[in-house]
Amino acid sequence: MSALPIDTSALETGDGPDPVFAAHRGGKMEIAATIPLADRDDLSIAYTPGVARVCSAIAAEPALFDEFTWASRTVAVVTDGTAVLGLGNIGPKAAMPVMEGKAVLFKKFGGIDAIPICLDTTDPEEIVETVVRLAPSFGGINLEDISAPRCFAVEAMLAERLDIPVFHDDQHGTAVVATAALQNAARLTGRRLADLRVVVSGAGAAGVAVTKMLLSAGVGDIAVADSRGVIHVGRDNLTPVKSELAAITNRAAITGSIEEALKGADVFIGLSAGKVPESAVATMAPDSFVFAMANPDPEVHPDVAHKYAAVVATGRSDYPNQINNVLAFPGIFRGALDVRATAITEGMKLAAAEALAAVVAGELRADHIIPSPFDPRVAPAVAAAVAAAARADGVARV
Amino acid sequence: MSALPIDTSALETGDGPDPVFAAHRGGKMEIAATIPLADRDDLSIAYTPGVARVCSAIAAEPALFDEFTWASRTVAVVTDGTAVLGLGNIGPKAAMPVMEGKAVLFKKFGGIDAIPICLDTTDPEEIVETVVRLAPSFGGINLEDISAPRCFAVEAMLAERLDIPVFHDDQHGTAVVATAALQNAARLTGRRLADLRVVVSGAGAAGVAVTKMLLSAGVGDIAVADSRGVIHVGRDNLTPVKSELAAITNRAAITGSIEEALKGADVFIGLSAGKVPESAVATMAPDSFVFAMANPDPEVHPDVAHKYAAVVATGRSDYPNQINNVLAFPGIFRGALDVRATAITEGMKLAAAEALAAVVAGELRADHIIPSPFDPRVAPAVAAAVAAAARADGVARV
Repeated sequence: MSALPIDTSALETGDGPDPVFAAHRGGKMEIAATIPLADRDDLSIAYTPGVARVCSAIAAEPALFDEFTWASRTVAVVTDGTAVLGLGNIGPKAAMPVMEGKAVLFKKFGGIDAIPICLDTTDPEEIVETVVRLAPSFGGINLEDISAPRCFAVEAMLAERLDIPVFHDDQHGTAVVATAALQNAARLTGRRLADLRVVVSGAGAAGVAVTKMLLSAGVGDIAVADSRGVIHVGRDNLTPVKSELAAITNRAAITGSIEEALKGADVFIGLSAGKVPESAVATMAPDSFVFAMANPDPEVHPDVAHKYAAVVATGRSDYPNQINNVLAFPGIFRGALDVRATAITEGMKLAAAEALAAVVAGELRADHIIPSPFDPRVAPAVAAAVAAAARADGVARV
Repeated sequence: MSALPIDTSALETGDGPDPVFAAHRGGKMEIAATIPLADRDDLSIAYTPGVARVCSAIAAEPALFDEFTWASRTVAVVTDGTAVLGLGNIGPKAAMPVMEGKAVLFKKFGGIDAIPICLDTTDPEEIVETVVRLAPSFGGINLEDISAPRCFAVEAMLAERLDIPVFHDDQHGTAVVATAALQNAARLTGRRLADLRVVVSGAGAAGVAVTKMLLSAGVGDIAVADSRGVIHVGRDNLTPVKSELAAITNRAAITGSIEEALKGADVFIGLSAGKVPESAVATMAPDSFVFAMANPDPEVHPDVAHKYAAVVATGRSDYPNQINNVLAFPGIFRGALDVRATAITEGMKLAAAEALAAVVAGELRADHIIPSPFDPRVAPAVAAAVAAAARADGVARV
């Protein structure tokens, strides 16, 4: 990211207003009424005295809440502003443009009404308390850009205390899309997930979730590297989350740097901003997959990756195979809300990945292992699979 | 209110679906994007990577938050569901239809994006903590349907802790409109507020606020009655709020029932569901004003009030002179947000009342002392007066 203009005059370029700042001026969303409010009769239906009958009906029969309010199709996009994009801890107010963006993507791709909620606390217990108290207003909670390891505790506590879907998109949205991409890359090259050895760079929210989901999906072995190198059971001073990772990963017992792990590896998945040198990519197994997802600067430049890999994916929209969470979260929440799911289960996430992969399974190419975010088949396919999995897992209420 | 149908089949009438329930099905509002999201270029501006530049700019210069997010024109409509319309403590979920209705009125009449927030706590400290943590997401806080006396403490604590407008509409919205109506009734009948003796029925949120505002506006004397009769300094077991009322009201030192207070009184203002017998109305001074605002059943039926009073107002849309909060809150918040006010001062509320009264000052009739909610002059006039008062009171930030 380049240095940033901060005074209004600097928001102009030689060609006129900066198009990004011009687009964001005034924010990116608004409220709209879905009922007429043109005259006194409309007002007496929408508000007093008519509305009192609807309130009383819900008080007498709580199940009517879902039918006669917007809450059951409304998601709170909750952040504390501690891990915003690659910018880090910029606080709740500076996080708002991302949360508004997320909200309009929910609407565009999932038909879901999402509200940005930027919290003035970074204490996990306070975040949880606050969201629990807000929860009657919403049908689901999307956690966003909350830094690891606090995000794991926040999500777990909320899932325990609430009976609506709770989903930390930075973890599970990324995991669903990466898993779908890996399934299709394996399908394209005629391999089984069980035969793949994967190296994940990054043990933050996304790295942990991707690793766990790939193991659930059947990947043979995964080595996870953080800034101190490969995580293994013998390493000192592991956080609880990394200790858990050490126990379930790295069957090859690799120690040392990520370069050690990449020797002969089948798959690289980059979920950190750390660069990987070309010399290390060159040591990977033949027909490897390189998913370099750091944004805007991939861990391995696609032009370099293509010299060695059979399939290359990034997080960027200007290269093929974009691993973009927008392929997952709208359909996942749509499916969960459609059946009034009380939780998002592992089965629902795996079903989402499989459904997403299946959308392009009949048209696979090395530069087309994952659909475009604008592919209209995606959200309905993901939603249907998630709803079915919710029923199978016994968390659907309707 | 009649007994309420609660099963879906009962929501049909002989003529087909009940029009009220049909209108509320699915809720009454939605989110809309205000930027295009048609292709990858749009996405790269609205979301990553473009949005990162906007976030960084706000992190470096917090004042840009108002310019590049929706928050500065967004109001949280916050309730705990304890005093919903005349229905009482029906809980946060059953309160949602009212809060959605309020939100769409904010949009329709004030161009303000309002979000219903129904809280799963009734503890004043917890409500305050929760709203303080949410506050970075909003430009203002509208408290709604929180029962007295907790509402007074909640509002005072929030106003102390936040630097955005905090406004309990059940108190101050009602007070502003009632004050405007009284000013115009006095103007119409050639009297001064200082010469009027007023009786207020009800010492809840609205009764307390109306009484205080009328005193600020210059009314000569007010007697306030609750279910135990007229409040006076000698009465036992007064709550702190009622003790304060006793100290500033009832200069005539009336004791006993509301009927005692009404003898010779110039004005009756009903803000409770308690009925007032015709025999008591008959004892009021000549050319009295009867504002019987209980909804849907006025304390004095308008047909009865007209036998004795020069001016009659109610809270109902099907009689003339409707005292409706929608005449106040959209313009008050619009004016406060327009100048980024850090608070709603007494001066801003009085300015709102005077501006509201002035809208129809040149066209006064006994059945037209207050504008229609659909009078397009109202919100702009109130907003301009409130913004000017905010500047005069030193709480405007722009």
